Amino acid sequence: MCAGDDKNCPDFELHHRQFKETLDRERRSFLRSSFAAAGGAAAMTAGGISLVTPKMAAAAEKHQPAQRSYHHLPANADTVHWGYFSKTLKPRVEINSGDFITIEALTHHANDDAERMVTGDPGVESVYLWTKEKKGVNRRGAGPMDASLFGRGPGEGLGVHICTGPVYVRGAEEGDVIELRIIDVAPRPCANPKYPGKAFGSNAAAWWGFHYKDLITEPKPREVVTIYEVDATGERNWARAVYNFTWTPQTDPSGVVHKTIDYPGVPVDHSTVKENHGILKNVRIPVRPHFGVIGLTPKEADFVDSIPPSYTGGNIDNWRIGKGATMYYPVAVEGGLLSVGDSHASQGDSELCGTAIECSLNGTFQVILHKKADLAGTALEALDYPMLETKDEWLVHGFSFANYLSELGPKAQSEIYNKSSVDLALRDAFRKMRKFLMTTKKLTEDEAISLISLGVDFGVTQVVDGNWGVHAVIRKDIFAGGES
Amino acid sequence: MCAGDDKNCPDFELHHRQFKETLDRERRSFLRSSFAAAGGAAAMTAGGISLVTPKMAAAAEKHQPAQRSYHHLPANADTVHWGYFSKTLKPRVEINSGDFITIEALTHHANDDAERMVTGDPGVESVYLWTKEKKGVNRRGAGPMDASLFGRGPGEGLGVHICTGPVYVRGAEEGDVIELRIIDVAPRPCANPKYPGKAFGSNAAAWWGFHYKDLITEPKPREVVTIYEVDATGERNWARAVYNFTWTPQTDPSGVVHKTIDYPGVPVDHSTVKENHGILKNVRIPVRPHFGVIGLTPKEADFVDSIPPSYTGGNIDNWRIGKGATMYYPVAVEGGLLSVGDSHASQGDSELCGTAIECSLNGTFQVILHKKADLAGTALEALDYPMLETKDEWLVHGFSFANYLSELGPKAQSEIYNKSSVDLALRDAFRKMRKFLMTTKKLTEDEAISLISLGVDFGVTQVVDGNWGVHAVIRKDIFAGGES
Repeated sequence: MCAGDDKNCPDFELHHRQFKETLDRERRSFLRSSFAAAGGAAAMTAGGISLVTPKMAAAAEKHQPAQRSYHHLPANADTVHWGYFSKTLKPRVEINSGDFITIEALTHHANDDAERMVTGDPGVESVYLWTKEKKGVNRRGAGPMDASLFGRGPGEGLGVHICTGPVYVRGAEEGDVIELRIIDVAPRPCANPKYPGKAFGSNAAAWWGFHYKDLITEPKPREVVTIYEVDATGERNWARAVYNFTWTPQTDPSGVVHKTIDYPGVPVDHSTVKENHGILKNVRIPVRPHFGVIGLTPKEADFVDSIPPSYTGGNIDNWRIGKGATMYYPVAVEGGLLSVGDSHASQGDSELCGTAIECSLNGTFQVILHKKADLAGTALEALDYPMLETKDEWLVHGFSFANYLSELGPKAQSEIYNKSSVDLALRDAFRKMRKFLMTTKKLTEDEAISLISLGVDFGVTQVVDGNWGVHAVIRKDIFAGGES
Repeated sequence: MCAGDDKNCPDFELHHRQFKETLDRERRSFLRSSFAAAGGAAAMTAGGISLVTPKMAAAAEKHQPAQRSYHHLPANADTVHWGYFSKTLKPRVEINSGDFITIEALTHHANDDAERMVTGDPGVESVYLWTKEKKGVNRRGAGPMDASLFGRGPGEGLGVHICTGPVYVRGAEEGDVIELRIIDVAPRPCANPKYPGKAFGSNAAAWWGFHYKDLITEPKPREVVTIYEVDATGERNWARAVYNFTWTPQTDPSGVVHKTIDYPGVPVDHSTVKENHGILKNVRIPVRPHFGVIGLTPKEADFVDSIPPSYTGGNIDNWRIGKGATMYYPVAVEGGLLSVGDSHASQGDSELCGTAIECSLNGTFQVILHKKADLAGTALEALDYPMLETKDEWLVHGFSFANYLSELGPKAQSEIYNKSSVDLALRDAFRKMRKFLMTTKKLTEDEAISLISLGVDFGVTQVVDGNWGVHAVIRKDIFAGGES
């Protein structure tokens, strides 16, 4: 089934009308929302100090059309790329600085329970389409298309996330910074009429998890998938487990047997697994909707594995990258080429078992371009890592390797999986926070180091994404005594 | 000058009267406080689920006298041990389960600015007394008394913290658990009339800091001490920097030259250092008063370095171990032998430069003994690590080595400094949280692992205490749906 954008589809007219209606509903809903009513983006930064000063905002506005546009980028087989970032991709939409855009993000774990996460949803169905003859999205990863490496399927071995995009930001060039304001995040409702008002997600405790070689009960090792239910209205702030099952070998439509979770989107045949219901009874998982993957496209390689996060963002997996947060990314290629994916209903710092509650979400963003020439002497000058700002805090993201693509040489994309440690990520986070305080707050190195020891908290972002992460958090009100 | 406890002092009568008056004032103040008025300790746990169930509390009460006593353990040369825990120490006070006690804790960095942190304070002066002929406290560390190792002074090389105690808890035996409720924490006011209403602390960015070999500005390497001012009333919730100075070689009263900060309590001669005032201008450090060191005494060695934290607690350096928190410690030796030290006005997760705002504090505690026989089937059964409970959260403390004294063999106390990593501490924290959820909440391993990935945050406690730490935090309201 097409998503209203395949003119060869016999039902194109019907689908296209449906798609336009959905889009219009989203847009009207957005414009009516309390956000817009309260003064829109201008109201966002009123609560605290922002890295973007009024002067910087004025400079950025010069590059913006007078009229803001609103865009909607649905997720379907034509608008996603699966498992990689690539500067060779054709942009799915072009926008201007200042524009708003709703981007639908799909979880790459939807086929763990197709009945709850795929069935009846045209966009998801078009992406997950996989018969012996045809795949809606053939390449799933940055690996070889002939699947010679492991024989699992095209793109195998490197990358897993369904990414919607890329979005081309007009005027963006290397050295610029893109400010991405996350205006709203909402769960994608289940389209199966059996489950009205609900959304679902999957948590896979998988072979790449930190726990995997450290299990204490039998059978060992094992991979366990837990399906969670989320309130689709977003009003109930906790999720609950529905059931879990231990992964058994699954034969995909191409005939390949997957003994472990080794290829994205393999459909799970529920007649081959034992569903354990009544688990995690009375446990309420705090919901923290966010995007595991948001990033611009790096320049170092044509196809870049979506798993390891790096200097242009990507799979950072910080649960704070949700509604109300602002991210700053350095632009590496023309147009920036922004993509969004790996949406999560909930995750703890460390994402220990390998995944979060992987759950499709819609995000509404405003994109602001800051030109390199306007950044001299500002907090964003020479930004070379993805930076997070919330109402109350600034966060820098440290990785085991700040830019593994350039640091680890030609084999970077495989080497990164063998060389990560939290110690290295902590050191990178320390260096970035020191730089931030010295450049943004004009502290001496000794002032910065003392302040870091007393007022900065370091947390383990994730230890499962190849390039492990540590984030450093500093509260804005530390500077409430006035600018240094 | 004696602290009212040296009968050979010519002014013993006067000092003893002063000491008793101070103690009475503390006691009256405590009994009058809003804490006591609000129903005392019983009110503490009303806000949330506690690990101690009513049944456990009833079992514990059987070992308590009907009447609670209140004790005051001042800090002076006779009540502190410097740089080590030891099962050979004579207890400074004996208390019953259920009793309250105020323990004065002194910073071991007071001599970085004696004028602000030593002068005029009899207790501190008695501890820091050091002339060519005499030291108030001679041994400073778990190392050799003949100082043959480095020639710095007695006890050199292993341990730094001034610990007040030990407190003997009647009836405590190996296998029991001591619950320590932190009722109140208050800064120790500066006794120098030049600085009324203020308290001070020192932050040393020292050679054992995570930053030390990674400095970017000259001169390299260097150690920098920053003196901070804290509101002694505890009403202003931020601290500010007064000045900093770069460490220069200091000659101690015994004639030993200290090129670096290599021996505890070396007096800094301020005529030899350059004070830089006007630093960290307008920066407000959030105050989080807590105790870096609280611990029972381990059984594995006669003298145990105070720096590496371990299974009986000690130098955990978690800023959440402050007012309102409850710690649970496994008892390793008869009486438990509780000591308190390394008091901090403020610290961030990681304590990156090597120290916090090291600042003398008074703590008021209630001590509850839980006998091994009463723990079967409870959350505290077979507890083998220091556990933290706050109103809203439970925290387990992971270390690079859960019990380095037994794991690293006869040379454990030196080996530990070469073998730590955050990765190891993260693994230990994961294992402890998994055990906690499986035993306390009766989850299966698969349920526990999924919950950890979604609802548990892992933070870097410290990377400077030899045995590095990671804490795992879980919110109590996750279980608000009812007990599993």
